[in-house]
Amino acid sequence: MEEFYWIGLKAVPGVGNVTFRRLLEHFDSPRSALSAAPAALSSVRGVTPAIVAAVREGAWQRFAEEECRRLQASSARLLLFTSAEYPKSLFQIPDPPPFLYLRGEVRSRETAVAVVGSRRSTAYGLLATGRLADGLARNGVAVVSGMARGVDTAAHKGALVAGGRTIGVLGCGIDKVYPPENRKLFDEMAERGALVSEFPLGTLPLAENFPRRNRIISGLSQGVLVVEAAENSGSLITAQYALEQGRDVFAVPGNITCASCTGSNRLIKQGAKLVDCVEDILEDLPGFARPAATAAGEAKSAGFALTPKEAAVYELLARTPLHIDDIISQTELTAGEVSSMLLHLELKGAVVPLPGKHYAVNA
Amino acid sequence: MEEFYWIGLKAVPGVGNVTFRRLLEHFDSPRSALSAAPAALSSVRGVTPAIVAAVREGAWQRFAEEECRRLQASSARLLLFTSAEYPKSLFQIPDPPPFLYLRGEVRSRETAVAVVGSRRSTAYGLLATGRLADGLARNGVAVVSGMARGVDTAAHKGALVAGGRTIGVLGCGIDKVYPPENRKLFDEMAERGALVSEFPLGTLPLAENFPRRNRIISGLSQGVLVVEAAENSGSLITAQYALEQGRDVFAVPGNITCASCTGSNRLIKQGAKLVDCVEDILEDLPGFARPAATAAGEAKSAGFALTPKEAAVYELLARTPLHIDDIISQTELTAGEVSSMLLHLELKGAVVPLPGKHYAVNA
Repeated sequence: MEEFYWIGLKAVPGVGNVTFRRLLEHFDSPRSALSAAPAALSSVRGVTPAIVAAVREGAWQRFAEEECRRLQASSARLLLFTSAEYPKSLFQIPDPPPFLYLRGEVRSRETAVAVVGSRRSTAYGLLATGRLADGLARNGVAVVSGMARGVDTAAHKGALVAGGRTIGVLGCGIDKVYPPENRKLFDEMAERGALVSEFPLGTLPLAENFPRRNRIISGLSQGVLVVEAAENSGSLITAQYALEQGRDVFAVPGNITCASCTGSNRLIKQGAKLVDCVEDILEDLPGFARPAATAAGEAKSAGFALTPKEAAVYELLARTPLHIDDIISQTELTAGEVSSMLLHLELKGAVVPLPGKHYAVNA
Repeated sequence: MEEFYWIGLKAVPGVGNVTFRRLLEHFDSPRSALSAAPAALSSVRGVTPAIVAAVREGAWQRFAEEECRRLQASSARLLLFTSAEYPKSLFQIPDPPPFLYLRGEVRSRETAVAVVGSRRSTAYGLLATGRLADGLARNGVAVVSGMARGVDTAAHKGALVAGGRTIGVLGCGIDKVYPPENRKLFDEMAERGALVSEFPLGTLPLAENFPRRNRIISGLSQGVLVVEAAENSGSLITAQYALEQGRDVFAVPGNITCASCTGSNRLIKQGAKLVDCVEDILEDLPGFARPAATAAGEAKSAGFALTPKEAAVYELLARTPLHIDDIISQTELTAGEVSSMLLHLELKGAVVPLPGKHYAVNA
């Protein structure tokens, strides 16, 4: 099968993604490249004598045989660079992987935004992440992240809960579940989104894999949103890749007294767009000009899921802030119902309390 | 006394700050203006027949007599537009007050920054305000604000505690203490800073006075820092004046789940500079250029803790971006050492990778 040669060529020591692509362009297929005469091989830019020797020596064959066996036994498949399914956005990065290990489904063209941040996020970071991932998903934008603890996990879950698509890019083999508590999330994402990895099966989640992995996260996305990144965090590397790849960089601000917001605030200082609602992202995505909407529609698009009664109260407050007594009289609900509803709306971030028992929508 | 005529001319109905200034320029003194012939008065742009009539009618005399009596009984004095002490920065605004009621001391030329924000600030807002006001004061920058509850009060107090100067601009007569709990602060500021007002003695702190007052806050300052401003807050008006007056606008970011940070975050979205430490402000003030330092010293001050070897590589890259091979040859470290060091520097945020294995310092 064709995959055997793709895996084989990539396993030849010294053949990186750029050289792989040159060989593919020169010989049309990895199979032809691997059976080419040494002189023909050497004529390709980047092919060293050591590569020519390794192709002839053939250790790649044993590796490829084993990897194909493991692949068949797994629930993953290979998505080749030449497949119609291969995400077009990765063609724009300098060194797209020749193939991706894939569970679930990626789309050749898809509006996607990466949401990345701290593994040790605060309650605030998780809340902001969940809210924005929910908003992206409700607007049909796929949420890309790295499956790590903290912000990454909250981003994937937020998108799933909103019924949207989400793509996890792994820094280990696609057959590894890391962190282990995310097993259920992995399976849900394979079902309703995708998991991808460029690392061979069985690869452990080593620290050195992550910076490389981050370029795929940004590469798959039209923009990268950073939530709660401390100084020196890996999310800042993803943001850096995003800039190099010509992607938009967005960041959620946070209190300057919070160490885990230092990096994201610095990104904003350096020119990243400050995001405090999902519209800030959508308005910069091609094809996402803001549709006219009712107030409740806006609340929904801002990422709040409201019950019909809550939506009615929200509509009321969207016109003008009101005293709680006026809300009660205008909705004909009981004081208890209104109180509890306002608390829910407040917790959802849809409504803010003003002094003296007045309430307003959270603009 | 001269002040009598200044107070009198300003009390003539229809004479605003701009007409006052034209009359002053034409007649050299308010006294001459008030005794000028009607035809001479009328020849000045902006002088209407109603103004000419009011000058002759003389109600301004009775007001000026009373105001002079009140002034002598108070602890304030008048600072005239023509005084050498009058702050030069107010000459740059379209309608500087002809005189200010003053307690304490203002300086003709002084580096000053306004720190303004919510009256209903959170603990976070007060903490951030105090920290930044302290930093400004310690660097010899006067802190200007509006004496209101919340952020304003925290700004004045922060500057005083740090031993610095602070100037309060009132929206009421300078003989009024508002809010009343600030009496001690008023007296301390008159002692170690200044209180100023353009309103006659006895003027109550009416809502309509505050937007006007805000243009003096920004006018006295080289930049305006907004901390915790909600939507539609008065601080946003001050920021707007600052923009119109060509002042820098700075804002402290806050959690997007906090309603009282909505306005300040929006300012940043609109182009205000995000501030998370006092250096962010100082570096934009004339005469506060960042002191010359070694590149490694800068890395340190930017918050990177570098080992001696890393500092050497950083110094090298601070001169010019380099290919990894050139870093290896110029440092005489091994390829492995340099690789791992660059990754560390990258994770610390000190260095950024460029395409083609080049590296640069993170400017």
